[in-house]
Amino acid sequence: MNRLKLGMVGGGEGAFIGAVHRIASRIDDQFDLVAGALSSTTEKSIRSGLALGLEKERIYTDFKEMAAKEATRSDGIDVVAIVTPNHMHYPVAKAFLEAGISVICDKPLTSSLEDALELKRIADNSEPFFFLTHNYTAYPLARQARNMVEKGSLGQLRVIQVEYPQDWLTTDAEHSENKQAQWRTDPTRSGPAGCLGDIGTHAYNLACFISGLSLKAVSADLTAFVDGRELDDNVHAMMRFDQGVKGMLWSSQVAPGNENGLRIRLFGDKGGLEWRQEDPNRLLFSPLGEPTQILTRAGNGYQSTAEHLTRTPGGHPEGYLEGFANLYTEAARCIQRYKEGEQKLDILEGSLIPNIDTGLDGMKFISAVILSSQQNGQWVDIEEI
Amino acid sequence: MNRLKLGMVGGGEGAFIGAVHRIASRIDDQFDLVAGALSSTTEKSIRSGLALGLEKERIYTDFKEMAAKEATRSDGIDVVAIVTPNHMHYPVAKAFLEAGISVICDKPLTSSLEDALELKRIADNSEPFFFLTHNYTAYPLARQARNMVEKGSLGQLRVIQVEYPQDWLTTDAEHSENKQAQWRTDPTRSGPAGCLGDIGTHAYNLACFISGLSLKAVSADLTAFVDGRELDDNVHAMMRFDQGVKGMLWSSQVAPGNENGLRIRLFGDKGGLEWRQEDPNRLLFSPLGEPTQILTRAGNGYQSTAEHLTRTPGGHPEGYLEGFANLYTEAARCIQRYKEGEQKLDILEGSLIPNIDTGLDGMKFISAVILSSQQNGQWVDIEEI
Amino acid sequence: MNRLKLGMVGGGEGAFIGAVHRIASRIDDQFDLVAGALSSTTEKSIRSGLALGLEKERIYTDFKEMAAKEATRSDGIDVVAIVTPNHMHYPVAKAFLEAGISVICDKPLTSSLEDALELKRIADNSEPFFFLTHNYTAYPLARQARNMVEKGSLGQLRVIQVEYPQDWLTTDAEHSENKQAQWRTDPTRSGPAGCLGDIGTHAYNLACFISGLSLKAVSADLTAFVDGRELDDNVHAMMRFDQGVKGMLWSSQVAPGNENGLRIRLFGDKGGLEWRQEDPNRLLFSPLGEPTQILTRAGNGYQSTAEHLTRTPGGHPEGYLEGFANLYTEAARCIQRYKEGEQKLDILEGSLIPNIDTGLDGMKFISAVILSSQQNGQWVDIEEI
Amino acid sequence: MNRLKLGMVGGGEGAFIGAVHRIASRIDDQFDLVAGALSSTTEKSIRSGLALGLEKERIYTDFKEMAAKEATRSDGIDVVAIVTPNHMHYPVAKAFLEAGISVICDKPLTSSLEDALELKRIADNSEPFFFLTHNYTAYPLARQARNMVEKGSLGQLRVIQVEYPQDWLTTDAEHSENKQAQWRTDPTRSGPAGCLGDIGTHAYNLACFISGLSLKAVSADLTAFVDGRELDDNVHAMMRFDQGVKGMLWSSQVAPGNENGLRIRLFGDKGGLEWRQEDPNRLLFSPLGEPTQILTRAGNGYQSTAEHLTRTPGGHPEGYLEGFANLYTEAARCIQRYKEGEQKLDILEGSLIPNIDTGLDGMKFISAVILSSQQNGQWVDIEEI
Repeated sequence: MNRLKLGMVGGGEGAFIGAVHRIASRIDDQFDLVAGALSSTTEKSIRSGLALGLEKERIYTDFKEMAAKEATRSDGIDVVAIVTPNHMHYPVAKAFLEAGISVICDKPLTSSLEDALELKRIADNSEPFFFLTHNYTAYPLARQARNMVEKGSLGQLRVIQVEYPQDWLTTDAEHSENKQAQWRTDPTRSGPAGCLGDIGTHAYNLACFISGLSLKAVSADLTAFVDGRELDDNVHAMMRFDQGVKGMLWSSQVAPGNENGLRIRLFGDKGGLEWRQEDPNRLLFSPLGEPTQILTRAGNGYQSTAEHLTRTPGGHPEGYLEGFANLYTEAARCIQRYKEGEQKLDILEGSLIPNIDTGLDGMKFISAVILSSQQNGQWVDIEEI
Repeated sequence: MNRLKLGMVGGGEGAFIGAVHRIASRIDDQFDLVAGALSSTTEKSIRSGLALGLEKERIYTDFKEMAAKEATRSDGIDVVAIVTPNHMHYPVAKAFLEAGISVICDKPLTSSLEDALELKRIADNSEPFFFLTHNYTAYPLARQARNMVEKGSLGQLRVIQVEYPQDWLTTDAEHSENKQAQWRTDPTRSGPAGCLGDIGTHAYNLACFISGLSLKAVSADLTAFVDGRELDDNVHAMMRFDQGVKGMLWSSQVAPGNENGLRIRLFGDKGGLEWRQEDPNRLLFSPLGEPTQILTRAGNGYQSTAEHLTRTPGGHPEGYLEGFANLYTEAARCIQRYKEGEQKLDILEGSLIPNIDTGLDGMKFISAVILSSQQNGQWVDIEEI
Repeated sequence: MNRLKLGMVGGGEGAFIGAVHRIASRIDDQFDLVAGALSSTTEKSIRSGLALGLEKERIYTDFKEMAAKEATRSDGIDVVAIVTPNHMHYPVAKAFLEAGISVICDKPLTSSLEDALELKRIADNSEPFFFLTHNYTAYPLARQARNMVEKGSLGQLRVIQVEYPQDWLTTDAEHSENKQAQWRTDPTRSGPAGCLGDIGTHAYNLACFISGLSLKAVSADLTAFVDGRELDDNVHAMMRFDQGVKGMLWSSQVAPGNENGLRIRLFGDKGGLEWRQEDPNRLLFSPLGEPTQILTRAGNGYQSTAEHLTRTPGGHPEGYLEGFANLYTEAARCIQRYKEGEQKLDILEGSLIPNIDTGLDGMKFISAVILSSQQNGQWVDIEEI
Repeated sequence: MNRLKLGMVGGGEGAFIGAVHRIASRIDDQFDLVAGALSSTTEKSIRSGLALGLEKERIYTDFKEMAAKEATRSDGIDVVAIVTPNHMHYPVAKAFLEAGISVICDKPLTSSLEDALELKRIADNSEPFFFLTHNYTAYPLARQARNMVEKGSLGQLRVIQVEYPQDWLTTDAEHSENKQAQWRTDPTRSGPAGCLGDIGTHAYNLACFISGLSLKAVSADLTAFVDGRELDDNVHAMMRFDQGVKGMLWSSQVAPGNENGLRIRLFGDKGGLEWRQEDPNRLLFSPLGEPTQILTRAGNGYQSTAEHLTRTPGGHPEGYLEGFANLYTEAARCIQRYKEGEQKLDILEGSLIPNIDTGLDGMKFISAVILSSQQNGQWVDIEEI
C-alpha cells in the first residue's frame, strides 16, 4: 500500500468542511496529510498544522509558496485539497495545477463564471487532475439510482423533482459570530449566489448526475427573505432538460425544520425513484403498477455496480462522511492509475468523480438562474451563458 | 334530530366520487338521501336509485325535472349533491339554486371561467347555499394548521411548497375502459385543465386555505407527457402570494409510486409545518431552534378549534371519508341554522366550508396557469384574469 | 335495499365505543338504529335516545324489557349491539339471544371465564347470530396479511411479534373524572384483566387471526405499575403456537408516546410481514432475499380477496371507522343470508367475522395469562384452562 | 499529536469486523496500525498485513509471539484490537494484558463464563486497559438517551422493550461458503450462544447502558429454527431489572426483512424514548401529555454531554462507523491520560466506554438466559450465575 501525500489549503481551526475532507481522506487509508496552508494568518496556520501533526516546515501561510515548495520536494504532495471560501478556489487551484499538483476542490467551482472558464482552460491544459467534491453523488445509492436510470428501470424519464432545504439562515446569523454564515452570505467571498451556490448547485448537480441529462433552460425566482441579506436565501426554479424532461428545484436556507434535506425524485414512463440524503441507506423504487420497493445499501436489491462504495453490510448505516470518502478513494485511484502509466483522459472517462466540466456546468447553472431571476423568471437557455 | 333531505345528480353505477359523497353524508347522520338523477341514462338511473333505496318516484333522469319537482314537494330535498363531470356542474347548480335548493358541488367549480363567473352571479343572488367540496381542507389537522398559521406559530410566512402527485395516468388509460380516465382527460367534459383542474386546484386551494393568503401571480409550465393526451398531466408552477410569500406547486398524474400524494409545507420566520394527506393524522411542527414535534389528531398538541372535526381518540386513524364528512356536517349545520332564522351571510362568515368564492378563485387560478404556460411561463397576475 | 333494524345496549352520552358502533353501522348503509337501552339511568337513556332520533317508545332503561318487547314487535330489531362495560356483556347477550335477536358484542366476551363458557353454550344453542367486534381483524390489510400467510407467502411460520402499547393510563386517571379509566380499571366491571382484557386480547386475537394458528401455551408477567391500581396495566408474555411457532406479546397502557400502537410482525422461512394499526393503509412484505415491498390498501399488490373491504382508491386513507364498518357489513350479510334461508353454520363457516368461539378463545387466553403470571411465569397450557 | 500504536489479532482477508475496527481507529486519527497477527495461517497473515501496509517484521502468525515481541520493542504497540472468533478472545487478551499491552476486544467477552471470570481476574490485576466494543452504546444519541434517563426526563422508569432482529441466517447459510455464518453457528468457536451471543448481548447491553439499571432475573425461550443448527437463532426473554423495572428482549437472525434492527424503547412515569440503530440520527422523546419530539444528532434538542461524539452538523448522517470510532477515540483518550500519569481507576470511573465488567455482565446474561431456557423459562436470578 502506498498512501498518497495530501496537502490542504484552508480548513484551519473552526472551519467545517476542512475537517470533513480530512476524515474522508482517512477512512479508506489512501492518503497521508503532510502539508498545509490552513489559514492565511500565520499563527493560526501553525497552530492548526501542529494540531494535525504536520511537520513545521510543511506548514505554510502562503498557498503560492506551498505550491512552489511542495512541487520541488522529492516527497512533495501528490494532491491538494482546497477548502477555502469560494473566491479563493480559483487562485489556489491555478497555483497548484500550474505547479503540477492535482487538486481536490470544494464546490462551487469558483465565485464567478469568468474564473470558472479560465480555470477550465488551465485544467484542460494541465497534467494533474482536477476533482470537485460534489460529494452527494458518491453516496452508494445515488450511484445506484444513476445506474438504474441508465439501464432503463424508469423507462423514458419525464419529471425530476429535486429540493434541498435547510434552516440555519432563517435569522440573520451573519450578524452573529457564526463564521460560516458570514462568508456564505458575503458576495465578496461567495460570489453572486448565496443559497443557490451553497446548496442549490448540489441539488442541480445531483439531478444531472442521476438522470444523465443536461439542462437546456431554466426559469427562476430568487429571494433574500432575511432583511439586509445581500445574497439569495431561497431558490425556486423550473427546469427543462434534454429529451423533453421537466423538473423543479427548490433550495432554501430559511425553511425551519430542515437540517440538510437534499431529496430527489425521478419519474419515467415505467417507474419512479426517490432518495433522501438524510436517510441515505434507502432508495425507494416504484416500478409502474407494482408495489414500491425499499432498496437498501448493501442489502436486497443493491447492485454490484455500487459495491465498492460501501464498507459494511446492510443495516449498518453509512453516511455523509463515507460518501465523501468515496470521492477521495476514487481520486486516489485515478492518481495511482496515472502514476502507473494510464492516460489521464482514459482514466477520467471511466470515472464518475466530478471534474472540471462538472464544475463549469454548475457555474453556468448559477449564472443562468441569476439571469432568469433578474429577468423576472424568463426562461434562460443554458447554452447562451 | 332532524336529518336533512339530500338529493344527488350524477354518481350512478361505476362512479367514484358519488359513493364518497353518500358515505360522507351518512357518517355523522345528518342527511337522508331521498332523491337522485344518478345518470342521464334512464335505465341506469333507475337501477342505481333502487340500489340506493330511493323511492321510484324520486328517481329522475333529467336534473331539471328533478329540481322542479323536488322544489314543489312538501318533503322535497333540502340540498343536492352534484357529482357529475365538470362540464355539468354549471347547468345543474344553476337549476337547483334557481329552484331554491342548496347545492353541494364537487370541484372544480365549472369547466370554464365564463360559467364560473355566471354561477357566482347566480349564487350571490340566490337564497340557498352553494358549497364546494374541497374536502382536503376539512381534515382536522389541515384546520389546525390554518389556525396555527393564523395565530402566528410560524411567524411571518415566507415559503409555501405544495405538491399533489398521482400515477394513475402514467399510461394512456383513457384508451382503456377506465371511465374516470376518459372524462378527466377529455376537454369537452373536463374543460381546458387536466391534472391542473382535477388535483392541481386542490393543492392550490389547500395552500390558500392554510396560509390564509391570496395568490397574486403565477408562472407555470404545463405538460401532457402521454402521447395523444389532450390535457395536461403535469403542472409545474411558481407562485407569488400576498405579503411577499413565495411558493411552488407541483401536481402530476404521471408520477409512478404516488397514489394520492397531496403534501404541503409552510415556512415562516419562526417555524415550519408539514402535512401529508396520506398520513393525515400527523402534523409536523418545527418551531425554529427547537425539535420538530409530531402533533396528532385528537392527541397531544391537538387544538380545541378542531375538536368537533374528529370522532375518535388519537391513534384511531380517521381518513379521507371522515374529512369529507366534516364538510357535509358543516353544510348541514349551515342549512339548519338558516332554517332556524340566521342570516345566510352571517352563517357563511363564521364558516370555513368552501363556497362559491373559493370555487371562483380556483377557476381564476386555472385560467392564470394555462395563460402563463401558453406564454412560456410569463408571470400572470391573478387580478388580470 | 333493506336495511336491518339495529338496537343498542349501552353507548349513552359520554361513552366512546357506542358512538363508534353507530358510525360503523351507518357507513355502508346496512342498518337503521331504531331502539336502545343506552343507559341504565332512565333520564340519561331517554336524553341519549332522543338525541339519536329514536322514537320514545323504543327507548328503554331495562335491557330485559327491551329484549322482550323488541322480540314481539313486528318491526322489532334484527340485531342488538352491546357496548356496555364487560361485566354486562353476558347478561345482555343472554337476554337477546334467548329472545331470538342476533348480537354484535364488544370485546372481551365477558368478565369471567365462567360467563364465557355459559354464553358459548347459549349461543351454540340459539338461532340468532353472535358476533364479536375484534374490529382490527377487519382492516383490509389485516385480511390480506392473513390471506398471504395462508397461501404461503411467508413459507413456514416461525416467529410472531405482536404489541399494543398505549399511554392513557400512565397516571392514575381512574381517580379523575375519566369514566373510561374508571370502569376499565375496576375489577367489578372489567373482570380480572385490565390492560390484558382491554387491548391485550386484541393483540392476541390479531396474531391468531393473521397466522391462522392456535395458541398452545403462554408464559406471562403482569404488572400494575400505577400505585393503587387494582388491575394490570402492562402485559409481557411469551407464546407457543401450533407448528412450533413462537411469539411475544406486549401490551401496555403506561407507555408514554403511544396512542393506539397495535403492531404485528410475522416471520416465516420465506418472508416477513409487518402491519401497524396507526398506519393501516400500508403492509410491509419482505420476501426473503428481495427488497421489502410496500403494499397499499386498494393499491399495487392489493389482493382481490380483500377488495370488498374498501371504499376508495389507494392513497385515500381509510381508517378505524371503516375497519369497524367492515364487521358491521359482514354481520349484515350473514343475517340477510340467514333471512334468505341459508343455514347458520354454512354462513359462519364462510365468514371471517369473529364469533362466539373467537370470544371464548380470548377468554381462555386471559385466564391462562393471569394464571401464568400468578405462578411466576410458569408456562400454562391453554388446553388446561 | 501523538498517535497511538495499534496492533490487531484477527481481521485478515475476508473478515468483517476487523475492517470495521481499522476504519474506526482511523476516523479521528488517534491510531497508527503497525503490527498484526491477522490470521493463524502464515501466508494469509503476511498477505493481509502487507495489504494493510504493515512492515514485514511486525506481521505475526502467532499472537503470543506478537505479544512478547511488541512488549519489548521501544516502538511497540500501545494497544491491540482483538477481532477473532469468540473462543480466541480469552487467550489473546490474556497474552497481551500479561505483556502489559492494553486491549480493545470485540464482544462477547469470551466463549464461556469460566474464561470470562478468569479474564476478569487478570484484567483487574493488570496495568493495561481492557475495553470491549459494545459499539452501539457509543452512538451519540444512545449516549444522550442515557443522559436523559439519568437526569429524569422519563421520570421513574417502568418498562424497557429492546429488540435486535436480523435475517441473514434464515436459511442454513452455515452450509454455504459463508464464513461468518460458519463460525457464528459453531459452538466450538462461538460458545454456547448463537444469536444470543452475537446480537442478543448487544441488545441487553444497550438496555442496561441507557437505563443505568442492572438486571435481576430473566425468563427465556431459545430456539434454533433452522434444521440442524446447533445454536439458537431466536431469543425471547422477559426481564426484571432493579427498581421494579420490567422488560422484554427479542433478538433473531431468522426474521426476513430485518438487516440490523436494533431498537430500544424506554418508558417511565413522565415520558418515553425510542431509538433505532438503523436510523441513528434521530431520537424520539415523548414527554407525557406533550407531542413527541424528534431530537436529532447535533441538531435541535441535542445535548452538550454528547457533543464530542459527532463530527458534522445535523442532517449530515453519521452512522455505524462513526459510532464505532467514538469507542476508539475514548480508548485513545484513556490511554493517553494514563501515559500522562492519571490513575487507571480514576480514568475508568469517568468514562462510559465498556470494560471488563461490562463484558462479564454480558456473559452472565448469556449464562442466565441459557439456563432459564433449559429450565423451560423458569426465572433465573442473575446473582446466582
